[in-house]
Amino acid sequence: MGRYVYFFAKGKADGSAKMRDLLGGKGANLAEMANLGISVPPGFTITTEVCTYYIEKGKYPEGLEEEIKKNLKRLEEETGKKFGDADNPLLVSVRSGARISMPGMMDTVLNLGLNDTTVNGLIKQTGNERFAYDAYRRLIQMFGNVVMGIEGEKFEELIEREKEAKNVKNDIDLTAEDLKKLVQSFKEVVKKEKKEEFPQDVFKQLRMAINAVFASWNNRRAINYRKIHKIPDDWGTAVNVQAMVFGNMGNDSGTGVGFTRNPATGEKKIYGEYLVNAQGEDVVAGIRTPQPLSQLKEDMPKVYQELLEVTQRLEKHYRDVQDFEFTIEKGRLYLLQTRTGKRTAQAAVKIACDMVKEGLITKEEALMRVEPGQLNQLLHRRIDPEAKVNILAKGLPASPGAATGKIVFSADRAVELAKDGEKVILVRRETSPEDIHGMAVAQGILTARGGMTSHAAVVARGMGKCCVAGCEAIRVEEKERKFTVNGRVFKEGDFITLDGSTGRVIEGKVPMLEPKLSGDFEMLMRWADEVRTLGVRANADTPKDARMARQMGAEGIGLCRTEHMFFGEDRLPFVQKMIMAKNKEEREEALEKLEPMQRGDFKEILREMEGLPVIIRLLDPPLHEFLPNYENLLVEINTLRLMKKGDEKEIAEKERILERVLALREMNPMLGHRGCRLGITFPEVYNMQAKAVFEAAAELVQEGIKVYPEIMIPLVATQRELSILREEIEGIAQKVMEEKKVKFEYKIGTMIELPRAALCADKIAEVADFFSFGTNDLTQTTFGFSRDDAEGKFIPLYLERKILKDDPFQVLDQEGVGELVRIGTERGRKANKDLEIGICGEHGGEPSSVKFCHRVKMNYVSCSPYRVPIARLAAAQARLEEKKEQG
Amino acid sequence: MGRYVYFFAKGKADGSAKMRDLLGGKGANLAEMANLGISVPPGFTITTEVCTYYIEKGKYPEGLEEEIKKNLKRLEEETGKKFGDADNPLLVSVRSGARISMPGMMDTVLNLGLNDTTVNGLIKQTGNERFAYDAYRRLIQMFGNVVMGIEGEKFEELIEREKEAKNVKNDIDLTAEDLKKLVQSFKEVVKKEKKEEFPQDVFKQLRMAINAVFASWNNRRAINYRKIHKIPDDWGTAVNVQAMVFGNMGNDSGTGVGFTRNPATGEKKIYGEYLVNAQGEDVVAGIRTPQPLSQLKEDMPKVYQELLEVTQRLEKHYRDVQDFEFTIEKGRLYLLQTRTGKRTAQAAVKIACDMVKEGLITKEEALMRVEPGQLNQLLHRRIDPEAKVNILAKGLPASPGAATGKIVFSADRAVELAKDGEKVILVRRETSPEDIHGMAVAQGILTARGGMTSHAAVVARGMGKCCVAGCEAIRVEEKERKFTVNGRVFKEGDFITLDGSTGRVIEGKVPMLEPKLSGDFEMLMRWADEVRTLGVRANADTPKDARMARQMGAEGIGLCRTEHMFFGEDRLPFVQKMIMAKNKEEREEALEKLEPMQRGDFKEILREMEGLPVIIRLLDPPLHEFLPNYENLLVEINTLRLMKKGDEKEIAEKERILERVLALREMNPMLGHRGCRLGITFPEVYNMQAKAVFEAAAELVQEGIKVYPEIMIPLVATQRELSILREEIEGIAQKVMEEKKVKFEYKIGTMIELPRAALCADKIAEVADFFSFGTNDLTQTTFGFSRDDAEGKFIPLYLERKILKDDPFQVLDQEGVGELVRIGTERGRKANKDLEIGICGEHGGEPSSVKFCHRVKMNYVSCSPYRVPIARLAAAQARLEEKKEQG
Repeated sequence: MGRYVYFFAKGKADGSAKMRDLLGGKGANLAEMANLGISVPPGFTITTEVCTYYIEKGKYPEGLEEEIKKNLKRLEEETGKKFGDADNPLLVSVRSGARISMPGMMDTVLNLGLNDTTVNGLIKQTGNERFAYDAYRRLIQMFGNVVMGIEGEKFEELIEREKEAKNVKNDIDLTAEDLKKLVQSFKEVVKKEKKEEFPQDVFKQLRMAINAVFASWNNRRAINYRKIHKIPDDWGTAVNVQAMVFGNMGNDSGTGVGFTRNPATGEKKIYGEYLVNAQGEDVVAGIRTPQPLSQLKEDMPKVYQELLEVTQRLEKHYRDVQDFEFTIEKGRLYLLQTRTGKRTAQAAVKIACDMVKEGLITKEEALMRVEPGQLNQLLHRRIDPEAKVNILAKGLPASPGAATGKIVFSADRAVELAKDGEKVILVRRETSPEDIHGMAVAQGILTARGGMTSHAAVVARGMGKCCVAGCEAIRVEEKERKFTVNGRVFKEGDFITLDGSTGRVIEGKVPMLEPKLSGDFEMLMRWADEVRTLGVRANADTPKDARMARQMGAEGIGLCRTEHMFFGEDRLPFVQKMIMAKNKEEREEALEKLEPMQRGDFKEILREMEGLPVIIRLLDPPLHEFLPNYENLLVEINTLRLMKKGDEKEIAEKERILERVLALREMNPMLGHRGCRLGITFPEVYNMQAKAVFEAAAELVQEGIKVYPEIMIPLVATQRELSILREEIEGIAQKVMEEKKVKFEYKIGTMIELPRAALCADKIAEVADFFSFGTNDLTQTTFGFSRDDAEGKFIPLYLERKILKDDPFQVLDQEGVGELVRIGTERGRKANKDLEIGICGEHGGEPSSVKFCHRVKMNYVSCSPYRVPIARLAAAQARLEEKKEQG
Repeated sequence: MGRYVYFFAKGKADGSAKMRDLLGGKGANLAEMANLGISVPPGFTITTEVCTYYIEKGKYPEGLEEEIKKNLKRLEEETGKKFGDADNPLLVSVRSGARISMPGMMDTVLNLGLNDTTVNGLIKQTGNERFAYDAYRRLIQMFGNVVMGIEGEKFEELIEREKEAKNVKNDIDLTAEDLKKLVQSFKEVVKKEKKEEFPQDVFKQLRMAINAVFASWNNRRAINYRKIHKIPDDWGTAVNVQAMVFGNMGNDSGTGVGFTRNPATGEKKIYGEYLVNAQGEDVVAGIRTPQPLSQLKEDMPKVYQELLEVTQRLEKHYRDVQDFEFTIEKGRLYLLQTRTGKRTAQAAVKIACDMVKEGLITKEEALMRVEPGQLNQLLHRRIDPEAKVNILAKGLPASPGAATGKIVFSADRAVELAKDGEKVILVRRETSPEDIHGMAVAQGILTARGGMTSHAAVVARGMGKCCVAGCEAIRVEEKERKFTVNGRVFKEGDFITLDGSTGRVIEGKVPMLEPKLSGDFEMLMRWADEVRTLGVRANADTPKDARMARQMGAEGIGLCRTEHMFFGEDRLPFVQKMIMAKNKEEREEALEKLEPMQRGDFKEILREMEGLPVIIRLLDPPLHEFLPNYENLLVEINTLRLMKKGDEKEIAEKERILERVLALREMNPMLGHRGCRLGITFPEVYNMQAKAVFEAAAELVQEGIKVYPEIMIPLVATQRELSILREEIEGIAQKVMEEKKVKFEYKIGTMIELPRAALCADKIAEVADFFSFGTNDLTQTTFGFSRDDAEGKFIPLYLERKILKDDPFQVLDQEGVGELVRIGTERGRKANKDLEIGICGEHGGEPSSVKFCHRVKMNYVSCSPYRVPIARLAAAQARLEEKKEQG
């Protein structure tokens, strides 16, 4: 530890932006601005090392006092004022500043240097008695509270009493005389509470304030904050001692904030507001309405010009949009703070592209400037932020976008109304695969139960349709065709609006904004594609999805689920027949009816994806999902029997179904008889599907269309499951090619969605052409969380208590689930170097998870079509971050 | 490859037992016996290397023919006979012999060397024309079939026709003349089928036979066998050419088999049977009843004496009980085969102990001689194997032992009858926690559904009670109090007997044998304890279980489940009240009632285990398990409503319960709101349990009793879950100690039963004193198998198709689940070197899994009390195997 204090003033700073660890964020930034020749209120920074020394040893390092005095001297020279001087006193602020901003966690003291004597000097200098006494009482109040530990209440009370006595409403209405009296009574409070006087020795004030700020590093608030944000306790904070400047010294003074470009639209034009003759607190207090910066141009054209130049210099220097604060003291401009400006997605894209055009940043930098998750805002219609809305309730933002329509309470009703050209919102307690046809025609979906990965949420996201899920405040009575919220009843046909991006449920119709995919956006995506090495595919179950996926830039389909096809109203009867079959023959008969339909599905999807790979997953869910609900059936039969309704034959048939449902019923369907276990036990189903895929491929090849079907086996836990099924499927491919006299390439691979599959990936890779990590199920089994249950029952509390940092069904748990992905990828590749590896869980479109996939060297991610641009950008960023790390 | 052929004859063999890889098992063993100076029919072995050469290159290595001729010459010298000689012909057999026995998979040819000329020499030498022609026709038949590939039928037909023509029943009734005729017609068959003559050139016979045996290594049967048993294809087989000896040459000849000690009891006395004037096939054919070896002692005392000496020498040499075959040819004894004798558990224990006393083997060897799994036979009563039984059906052998009693169909009925002193068998479609009180009083449990780890099976094993589960052949109608099997109806009160060790369900009462724990058994256990380093604890939920566990040698309790205590009829109402509570206060009120009861439970268990550690697991199952069944309630309410029965208040109350059941209901309870998730969301429950444990401990300490309670948190997935609960529990311990003014040691640890916990074991170990691998649930999550569903639905097929080698719920899957155990153990220890690690899943009592636990360096295994001896022995063996490996 050599040096304890770093001085800064316009054009000459001991430190720089690079010394953030030592000087804290604020100190380093002030030094940087000073070095740039920008007017900042001069001052000096006491390093973070002093803080850690102080905390460890309970005292300051030797020589610190000397250094502070020396720098105070420099400050006096710089300002031409003198600390504690009766004529022209120097006032300073003392502020904390850690490496990383911890807003509001540590202490600040302003106006240090005022006492009974120097207050007169301040009056003399400013000619403003009221201002001077107001500054003095603020010092005593702040110092009393922060440094001496007196409750703020004690001071506030006196102000209130004074205002009552004078019969005024605002602090500002108090006169200099009133404030002078308050100074007196504040000093008395200090004496009464602490048995000592408010220090008149300004050096004592400074010493005590510095102590207090250092000590605030270890207040309970700050400790908790660090725990939550994982900030090491031994970083410590720096302390900044800075000359005070005042924006409330007349009409040649003022204060304001601004951005170097419009943070909403990205337009390249200074943007902000200011208040003449005011302090920063006045802006916050909201008593006076700030003016746009154009007003400053008129009020003080020279200052405005300087501000323009200074902030443009800052933007050029930091090479990004700046969010700045400034104060004008008697016509002199001071920059108090500058930092990177937050912006909307639209602005982020425009600014990034503009800055490349301006030569300010490179394409690579531009790519790093846009938060991939933000792009969501650009890809869906949204509610006009200007519109006044009446929010009925809030649910989970399960699938982004917005929709208005008439409410309906059943899928069938949705279809009926939609046929008549009505726009409908499907409202259900929760949805199940039987509701798919209703979801498909609805504008949006609202459910009272279920989490971010409930059936409704997952399907809606897949369809790119807006959805608010788990909106527990509404009580849905489906049979009565109504829902109740806060005592109000909404019936079929009433209009509501959903905001799937925020979870809001809004009464009536609301004006919307359509998404605009600007040319800038497309340009950015092209740059991303140039940079990224990770492929991006889409999850798509229908030709329509496939088309959308291509539009969004998908390079193939990473997951085409075939079970949704089974729920079509023309198919379900045959699917049920297949399940109810008494023997293999009956089962095959039903499957023969399904085969041409499946073939048709595959043909259209493969056609849409001409030239690109399409991974088709064979049937995954347990068969009972295709049969009627057990409890409903039970009650129905009970009712029929008791009421002696329905003939015996009908009841017998229902009982036969009940028996089958019972036989197929499972304690834990998630861990049950599904995926490849069905493929092994009922080989006819998979054989039919494989045949449909290959015949579709063959027929397209005959048309001269290039196809790359890849067949994916779900829920594999052992090598032998895959090798048995692989052998079957290869036989079918061979047969189809011979019969149709064509050749086509195809692959056979597996989902890796069970811990065992990841652990035994080396074995499984011997018989697989590709792996696709099914991180939805892998998360369920690795955590032992049933997502249908967990999201409603304990995940919210787990997030609140920080047991989980994120919902693991949305953000890949890199520590646990990710560890299995890493193990699976490594072992798989080691055994089969040509193995193609991807991910097709929900995480494939979540930026931090996409980056993880890049780092573990997957070949591609696959996500819902609407998240493809997000994945493309995240993949590019991952590659850039990796390059940077490699140096 | 230097040498192709190894000769052997009494007192002089080129090979030895150590050359098994080269000579095959049979060849090496014959060489060994010959070296020991034991009479074996002399011969020579052609090495496995010749086989692999032949298969690879399609021809024999140069010089082989020469070597065979040279050795044939030695064989002629040894026997004084000559191959192909018209006066005194040498006859030989050609047999396969791989490294590992592949019984019946490859070919054998006997009596080679006979032709139209030499058959007369045989007649001359034996003076028995019938014998000679019989031998000749057998050669043609066998050679024709095995070497030339003619269907066996073709020959058998002719024999049948001949017997019909002579109007006799048995082959033995055919005369020499008949057989001579058969030889003629057999030769004609050969010619007709193969267009060539049966070879009269004896050398050609030999060459062809050797070719055929080598080629049989690659017949389909053998290839499949190797695939299943994982025997490498490139091992090849050896071929043994051996002089024929005949036990059917008169009353000074014979053949037999025997054991050097009694394989059923272990008694040290030769045991076996023989037939005079007979061949090995005659014993198998079962036409004549063999005599005990004592008969041989009378018939041929000298031979008997020689047999005694020879077999004792073999036992001494091999240092284990031998299972041998012999032939006497004209008063001369030949040993044909010797191998380690299989034995019962009782015999295994006695023999191992006896041999140590005799100084034949060391204690360590004795420990390796008993198969731990076999001990099960000794630890339960069993059905008298002599008894005649009428088997009604077979289910899964879910919990060993045997029981007879009157059948009942409900737990309540079981309790009623048991109170009257009746012995009952509880028969249910399947059991649930609500049946516990009935299971506790029943002699045995029979279920129609559920697998080896169904509720019934697990609880029964825990109780050490016999259980047959998943007996699908019976149809249980609980309401009608009857079950039907094969059209027969059994009603309440009828007697049945269960054999839980085999899964048999038997009609009526059956005589039983009580288990005998002999002194030998105890001695063996003591030796095991001296050797093993792995601890053995027991899973025990009640004081009775705990007592049994101590008797069986458990060194503590590794798992005391607390949920079973919640099902007691005095507790369930309060448990339900606690769950139905409208707020925290009501919940705490109910818990206050439960606390003293739980305290009482813990006190008794801790008292039983004085001085030993007791791991108590806090509540694990989801709360809905304690409420009525949802479907039943639904139908009940529906019925009440429709029939207008029951007053409105009753229905409303039932509906309130239904609502709660519905709210708690889960899609996948296994992955749901249970374990520590309950502990976090409803802290009152865990707090009550922790308080009960610590108060029990404190009160015992006050009595001067040493206690070591260890509190185990189930279903932990993240470090923070454990650290939150740990903090709570430590607070409670502190408070109890202060209040009761005593000190006691305690530990807080966690189950590792989720993949994530194993993967993040380093983090979790930072806040855990111990880990206990819950491999039941870990198997469920790692495989994604719900054991309740999987065992009925697809595991049987998976075992049949060899997708699974063993049921992973019985034998730990070392490749997948074991990999997680290994990772968890390594990472846990690395982070916390004092971490105590054990296993408490079902696998803790399964020998191969116990050995795995030793290898991964766990501290202990914990299993049901009745499996403790098995675990002790397996642990000792694991240590010995490790020592051997370390050399």
